[in-house]
Amino acid sequence: MLTTFKASAKKLPEGLQVNCGTRKFSFLLDEPEELGGTDAGMNPVEAVLCAFGACQSIVAAAFAQAQDFHFEEVHVELEGDLDPDGFMGLADVRNGFQEIRYKVHFKTQESQEKAEAFAAFMAAHCPVGDCLENGVKLINAGVVRE
Amino acid sequence: MLTTFKASAKKLPEGLQVNCGTRKFSFLLDEPEELGGTDAGMNPVEAVLCAFGACQSIVAAAFAQAQDFHFEEVHVELEGDLDPDGFMGLADVRNGFQEIRYKVHFKTQESQEKAEAFAAFMAAHCPVGDCLENGVKLINAGVVRE
Repeated sequence: MLTTFKASAKKLPEGLQVNCGTRKFSFLLDEPEELGGTDAGMNPVEAVLCAFGACQSIVAAAFAQAQDFHFEEVHVELEGDLDPDGFMGLADVRNGFQEIRYKVHFKTQESQEKAEAFAAFMAAHCPVGDCLENGVKLINAGVVRE
Repeated sequence: MLTTFKASAKKLPEGLQVNCGTRKFSFLLDEPEELGGTDAGMNPVEAVLCAFGACQSIVAAAFAQAQDFHFEEVHVELEGDLDPDGFMGLADVRNGFQEIRYKVHFKTQESQEKAEAFAAFMAAHCPVGDCLENGVKLINAGVVRE
């Protein structure tokens, strides 16, 4: 059933800090000093990496039993290459990540072959991975002056 | 200059909870009870909406002066449609967002026309928006058993 998830992001008076959240949850995003911020939180592209790693971890936990794959621990390490000169208008490169690489770590007694097959399952079923790999239609639904 | 941003996500023992972070920052993601979690944090797709809204807000703050657009406050509201039956394997739909809609709110004395032009600038220069709209190459760089 189609479900609508919501969120909001509000610029704070301090530097580039933004408070963002949904429902009863919120967190602060900022930029490091070298990108003009006050380094009070991770930045949005780091948050995207976090969300992608968490999404894969949740898929792992939710589907392990059904996929007959057993592990004691799972964690995902991620890195993404981005050239800030893009959005600064200093270079003709894309604004976002040019590539995201990730490694999946299991504490498990399963074979390497089964671990790789389950990691492929995680990637193929991860909603955030689908958004990043295949893109999403973004629609500006309004600009409101207050 | 190409910069590599990093993050990690580690499944916690509790339900579907995942601690994710980078550098000195971390936050907890989870799923609501209806999606199998314990609702101790927002979920990864909500975090993606947050990151997209925050990224636009940061672009707004960073480029307002250079774009000759003046505002006292900015916030972005976002919503995205996703069918959880996709990753549950219950329906032949994509796993990720089918569409993301957002509204940009300014407290400003500028005209509606200038506000809309600046919102378009924000969208066009937002790194997270670029990732979502145009997709990113995702590379599994390894599966490690420990």
